[in-house]
Amino acid sequence: MHLELYMRERRSLVEAARDRYLPSASEPPGRLHEAMRYSVLAPGKRLRPILVIASAEAAGGKADAVLPTACALECIHAFSLIHDDLPCMDDDDTRRGRPTNHIMFGEATALLAGDALLAFAFELISDNLDLLRDGSEDARALEPAAVRVAKVLRVVARASGTWGMVGGQVADMDAEGKDISAQDLQYIHSHKTGALIEASCVVGSLLVGGSPQAVAALSCYGRHLGLAFQIADDILDVVGDESKLGKPVGSDVRQDKATYPKLFGIEESRRKAREEAEMARAAVECLGAAADPLCSIAGYVVEREL
Amino acid sequence: MHLELYMRERRSLVEAARDRYLPSASEPPGRLHEAMRYSVLAPGKRLRPILVIASAEAAGGKADAVLPTACALECIHAFSLIHDDLPCMDDDDTRRGRPTNHIMFGEATALLAGDALLAFAFELISDNLDLLRDGSEDARALEPAAVRVAKVLRVVARASGTWGMVGGQVADMDAEGKDISAQDLQYIHSHKTGALIEASCVVGSLLVGGSPQAVAALSCYGRHLGLAFQIADDILDVVGDESKLGKPVGSDVRQDKATYPKLFGIEESRRKAREEAEMARAAVECLGAAADPLCSIAGYVVEREL
Repeated sequence: MHLELYMRERRSLVEAARDRYLPSASEPPGRLHEAMRYSVLAPGKRLRPILVIASAEAAGGKADAVLPTACALECIHAFSLIHDDLPCMDDDDTRRGRPTNHIMFGEATALLAGDALLAFAFELISDNLDLLRDGSEDARALEPAAVRVAKVLRVVARASGTWGMVGGQVADMDAEGKDISAQDLQYIHSHKTGALIEASCVVGSLLVGGSPQAVAALSCYGRHLGLAFQIADDILDVVGDESKLGKPVGSDVRQDKATYPKLFGIEESRRKAREEAEMARAAVECLGAAADPLCSIAGYVVEREL
Repeated sequence: MHLELYMRERRSLVEAARDRYLPSASEPPGRLHEAMRYSVLAPGKRLRPILVIASAEAAGGKADAVLPTACALECIHAFSLIHDDLPCMDDDDTRRGRPTNHIMFGEATALLAGDALLAFAFELISDNLDLLRDGSEDARALEPAAVRVAKVLRVVARASGTWGMVGGQVADMDAEGKDISAQDLQYIHSHKTGALIEASCVVGSLLVGGSPQAVAALSCYGRHLGLAFQIADDILDVVGDESKLGKPVGSDVRQDKATYPKLFGIEESRRKAREEAEMARAAVECLGAAADPLCSIAGYVVEREL
């Protein structure tokens, strides 16, 4: 299993599709579209869309059948970063090594670009139905394509809002400057970052008609992967290389955010991240060789620069 | 046709459902849920959800079958008002006679409450599928319920984002302080307010399996109604009664916004509003008596306080 090659190939699929789907800056309102594209096209790992594809493949489906939904997850991720960086939130000036959206386009346009990306993500999910009907769907699929799209809609809507990402952001804000328990910290992480990562791992298999067992395994994988990812992120904020991260390190400490290193120290956090990655891998063992990329991704997520 | 009674009955259906659906303030994160509820439960006409119901009824369906989607449209409306009032946008302190969301809960929570309401609206749309399957669907419906939900998803996502409301908001901002053409003004109005009103008129009939002719008629009705509504709103901002509107009058003039009175004067704007309402009524004539409430609503929208 050559992970780097695998990720590079999926990443180019995603990036080509996303460029095609996103509203063009030459269509009105051009400034809004420019702002939307600025954040979605920014350099990045594309972890969430790659997980959507890997999840579809692990359930026996094809990447092409899930590309709109894969891009939808990237749009939601971009929306959350734009709003997170706004002055009334984290007030960050740089992201991925470039000026943040509101520094480039002004606060009002950045706010609306985020809103538009969230709405656009749901439009992409509805577009995915056409692809599934066009014969590219997995032959073993028993459920009608529209039922699968409706399930995906539900998973993504819940993971984006108060039951997921936004709920986690609120809890994260509330925890600033406070001493919180390990349980509270896990709530924050599993919601703020974990929910969308878990959703990414689930929707690919849902769309291609994966079995309930496969979907459950991928959901469990996604839950552990999301936690592993966020613990690793917390660690990188302390020990990472600013030029590689594209954002200043130490911002969590400055804002007195609730993090794993703050609660457990660096070494214990590293151990926990690896433990979560191990549990993620174990969850998809039942899917056999089709889940090899997912297993490698779990390793990659915690070993990045730890 | 007793419009006041009709609207009161539908309004209580909507308000009871919405109260049931919305996350409770006793569930975490409670502060976010309080902020979401604050704006959705604020006094209001409930025009959009009532239109969803009236559209379902005009196509031969029942109110009960479309309540989650009706509430979804109200959540999207509330989301847009919260973000519109933020300091980086219109910077308004009062709305519907009460302090705006960010005055009550702070800017960060207001921003996130808006985000969460948009995501929650899509969750409600996915929830609507269960109701349609529970036997409450119209017997004449030929399309599977999930296909109808996927269509509604597409209509609502497009009406909320850059192709609709958010796109109109950007164009509205860009037009401040400028001389714009009647065509540009119609673009702004038909997107900023019109798109969501048109969507409200369409999705009810889509959900209950209305015929393509009924859906097309309701879409045309919604387009004209939306324009009539916004022209009337422009007029009320000049001549309205502050205590009835629940917001300061004259804010468009102060911000030098593009409006019908600015471009055409009050009398010509009144004439245009009535003309649009007339075209709305004409569009649904083909639906017979089932569309009586919609015809009365068109009259109500322009005669409110003009």
